[in-house]
Amino acid sequence: MPSPTRQVFFLSNGTAITAETLGLSLLAQFPDHKFQTRTIPFIDTLEKVHAVAEEINHSINGANQLPIVICTMGDDDLMKIVNQTKALVIDPFGDILPRLEKVLAAQHHQPGQSHRTVNLSLYESRIDAIDYAMQHDDGGKTQNYDEADIILVGVSRSGKTPSCLYLALQFGIKAANYPITEEDMDFEQLPKPLRPFKDRLYGLTTNLNRLVNIRQERRPDSRYSSSEQCRYELRAVEDMYLRHNIPYINTSEMSVEEISARIIRDNDLHRSDLT
Amino acid sequence: MPSPTRQVFFLSNGTAITAETLGLSLLAQFPDHKFQTRTIPFIDTLEKVHAVAEEINHSINGANQLPIVICTMGDDDLMKIVNQTKALVIDPFGDILPRLEKVLAAQHHQPGQSHRTVNLSLYESRIDAIDYAMQHDDGGKTQNYDEADIILVGVSRSGKTPSCLYLALQFGIKAANYPITEEDMDFEQLPKPLRPFKDRLYGLTTNLNRLVNIRQERRPDSRYSSSEQCRYELRAVEDMYLRHNIPYINTSEMSVEEISARIIRDNDLHRSDLT
Repeated sequence: MPSPTRQVFFLSNGTAITAETLGLSLLAQFPDHKFQTRTIPFIDTLEKVHAVAEEINHSINGANQLPIVICTMGDDDLMKIVNQTKALVIDPFGDILPRLEKVLAAQHHQPGQSHRTVNLSLYESRIDAIDYAMQHDDGGKTQNYDEADIILVGVSRSGKTPSCLYLALQFGIKAANYPITEEDMDFEQLPKPLRPFKDRLYGLTTNLNRLVNIRQERRPDSRYSSSEQCRYELRAVEDMYLRHNIPYINTSEMSVEEISARIIRDNDLHRSDLT
Repeated sequence: MPSPTRQVFFLSNGTAITAETLGLSLLAQFPDHKFQTRTIPFIDTLEKVHAVAEEINHSINGANQLPIVICTMGDDDLMKIVNQTKALVIDPFGDILPRLEKVLAAQHHQPGQSHRTVNLSLYESRIDAIDYAMQHDDGGKTQNYDEADIILVGVSRSGKTPSCLYLALQFGIKAANYPITEEDMDFEQLPKPLRPFKDRLYGLTTNLNRLVNIRQERRPDSRYSSSEQCRYELRAVEDMYLRHNIPYINTSEMSVEEISARIIRDNDLHRSDLT
């Protein structure tokens, strides 16, 4: 018997990114269950928390199932009201902060401030990296590759652009990307703009079916999205990676987060977002 | 006496995004302490976990301070080895999953899979949103605004591009952005491409000093980055928001995450990433 859909709330007096990230990871451990999730950020007054508490209590569904609440509310008074709801309330800060306080021999302050711009130079390095990714997307401005932390290569629609943007936004990493087109595939040598930067290249590839599907969305029934063309391009680009010893990954089963984490690890890239 | 720098590890057999997000939020509660953080993803074999455990044990510094480990390792055998290190080990999955299992009356499976592409249509909506944001950045392709979920407006360097990209990457929201330039400020009316879409407009503004600093980075000692020009533009754009009843926020103290969370809340935008 399939379970009915369970209501889940991610709450915080800040952006609720932490509550939601942790919450979605936890829910992913129960793939046979259906969840209806709702993220409510910036619950920073008694009035707002009472309104949310009422909503939680009203969300108990016909099957009489407890809603689940994952809440990183920092303020104790606000948290108390969430704890009084008829829900399974998970409060990771409440569980963990006392243990950290003991080890650090310190009281905590300033809850809910975790995603604010504290460090201006960090903020600027992210913005610089975004500018760089935008200008060096899809083979643009190849003359500035000496500034790149990494240059992603691959055929059209293999995941280069989202990966570059994610690396920039999340980690302040300057990532360029260069599309390998049919003209580049006819030669033994690497495309000219890439040759001086061989040590910064990282290849993406994907599965044939996945590439055909994605290209069909973009240009249905074209040569570009045909199986023959996609097969040819994927073989040629993988041959190029092997011939020139370019490390590469198959992105077809990966999220943008996972692709980016692997690129950072495989290339030992410096993240400007961490202390 | 300032505390010495404390070593902190974020570990996972997956991307480690959850461990790191939660961990950074926790550390932000102790602003007087210095932390040296290290994220190690994809620890998915006994060999790898033993190598990491050794590194943790060797990181105990001269002040004899325990390192802190925040670990969302799903696999019990791997977690056991992390738990045996000489560190304060925080295991949020271990703390919380048993409580969820009880409420859901189910065993959990598939740990560490939380940031994989499970849902192909969700992945595609993110990719579509990224394509949209790239094409509709900085006033590009204004004829397609009927497809936008939101159109951000503001002066140059007020945070439009990073916010649009973040909304697309994280939430699959189609966000365009339109720069308000000097020519647009001379008129009583909204810029022509925006007029039919007044209900989708959202304004960004910022503080004078912040804008001057950011523009100085880009074009030092220019009219563009002068105090006079920045002051004029900010006043004109805020007048425009008020005159046309466009909701707006001041982004100068906000991270991209916070700006995006506010845009979603204030406009009740539909996120395609959640269940």
